[in-house]
Amino acid sequence: MPELAYVNGAIGPIEEAKVSIEDRGYQFADAVYEVVVSYHGSPFLLDEHLVRLKRSMAGLRFPAVDVAALENEMRHLFEIAAIDNAALYLQISRGVAPRNHAYGSRAEPQIVMTIRPAPAIPAEKRAKGYGVITVPDTRWGRCDLKTVQLSSNGMAKQQALDSGADDAIFVGADGVLREGTSSNLFMVRNNKVVTHPADQRILPGITRQVVIGFCDHLDLPVRFEKTPQSALVNVQELFLTGTVTEVLPVVSVDGKMIGDGRPGPVTQKLQQAYRTESGR
Amino acid sequence: MPELAYVNGAIGPIEEAKVSIEDRGYQFADAVYEVVVSYHGSPFLLDEHLVRLKRSMAGLRFPAVDVAALENEMRHLFEIAAIDNAALYLQISRGVAPRNHAYGSRAEPQIVMTIRPAPAIPAEKRAKGYGVITVPDTRWGRCDLKTVQLSSNGMAKQQALDSGADDAIFVGADGVLREGTSSNLFMVRNNKVVTHPADQRILPGITRQVVIGFCDHLDLPVRFEKTPQSALVNVQELFLTGTVTEVLPVVSVDGKMIGDGRPGPVTQKLQQAYRTESGR
Repeated sequence: MPELAYVNGAIGPIEEAKVSIEDRGYQFADAVYEVVVSYHGSPFLLDEHLVRLKRSMAGLRFPAVDVAALENEMRHLFEIAAIDNAALYLQISRGVAPRNHAYGSRAEPQIVMTIRPAPAIPAEKRAKGYGVITVPDTRWGRCDLKTVQLSSNGMAKQQALDSGADDAIFVGADGVLREGTSSNLFMVRNNKVVTHPADQRILPGITRQVVIGFCDHLDLPVRFEKTPQSALVNVQELFLTGTVTEVLPVVSVDGKMIGDGRPGPVTQKLQQAYRTESGR
Repeated sequence: MPELAYVNGAIGPIEEAKVSIEDRGYQFADAVYEVVVSYHGSPFLLDEHLVRLKRSMAGLRFPAVDVAALENEMRHLFEIAAIDNAALYLQISRGVAPRNHAYGSRAEPQIVMTIRPAPAIPAEKRAKGYGVITVPDTRWGRCDLKTVQLSSNGMAKQQALDSGADDAIFVGADGVLREGTSSNLFMVRNNKVVTHPADQRILPGITRQVVIGFCDHLDLPVRFEKTPQSALVNVQELFLTGTVTEVLPVVSVDGKMIGDGRPGPVTQKLQQAYRTESGR
């Protein structure tokens, strides 16, 4: 059973899985999500995703969800789907109720999942790197909470593809480089690894955290700094991190080369470390 | 048939109306909406709502939707529901597709509606006015597009109710008073009617536009200005406008009285003009 959907306990084909039109996830983007991948059938970093899920739900003041039971359901779905390299998408919305901004105490969280083969980023892209564009960051002010308020992300990704690039990087009104449309951004500058501080403007990425751990282990100094777009001329290497993205070199921004236009040694070292850690 | 749902042409009970879990409105908040009310069975300002709907869809680069056909469907729904004072909720999402930030050219807009009696704001509240709180504006950067990215709005409204207030007003990082959770904000200051300019930080409200027209007709000068929260001490009157809100006095902000704590003469004049215009 390669592709499956789960809706509040019921498992079936994705095409037939439906939710109420009055699900608050649909009418108010009042929902959080996670994407967990498996390697050789085993979910990778599931605990970390569940910790972040709880954090997002607390941030939106969701009622308590039984996360231990949820974890069992997720593991069950990985098992019965039996996909070597699966991506499990999990979305939890606050509940279903006649449309009203206020949610009172009626909320009963709705749990929806899909599982299918993880999207494949072509090996050549992984080896040679992405070209990205920059776009103004029009996202909401709590990007640290992983909600489905992803309109800006979808628009930016599409704009990148339409312009012949691979992805987009959000730039704040203050000129600071924030992150990609579904990934965090790292750079190598003055021989240090630099990434945006984990404040409310970026997602506290799980792969980001793993890569910071690699840097520690590899004795690469890490700085949490806001980098203005104007500083890109002095950047030696640039890369994106994420659950599906893993570690992905970026070799050009808005058509301008980063470094010599090829993935740098630090990026390659971290890609290798990720391959080893994940068992890919 | 008092309460009905419409999903891509099919009309039935709201409780049974469903959409795909892979509707982009659900997974990416990639959807726009409008709320249209009727008075004595006749939809009010329907054309204006449809113009704004088209503007929102263009802002998200939706494929073309046949708005003339949609208008017929909306009028039909008002007719068969036969509710004296109805609220028709219309939501259009970009389409249904396997989850992917990019949407390519596959999108086929999904049209969902509900119709039910308009929410009633108690007559006493309309007469005596709202108490509101202020909250930081964490919404996205294109509040001029009427999308379902309403997580901040829902949270703010609930926070207001939980604190014993009636609604919340968003305040920007620059200290500027923007608008309510589902309404625009007006004030009377130095004997002039003042409201936020219709930029990307507020919704270009239809009732806002109608009220500006009333001011013109009543020879009340209107200024489009950003007012800092700190200027509230000099504000004579404060009120909210919206399709369901109509014209609603605000008599306290964060527990502090506006003027003498009672709805002022300008607000009352505009309330009366709205009642006349709408035929309520």
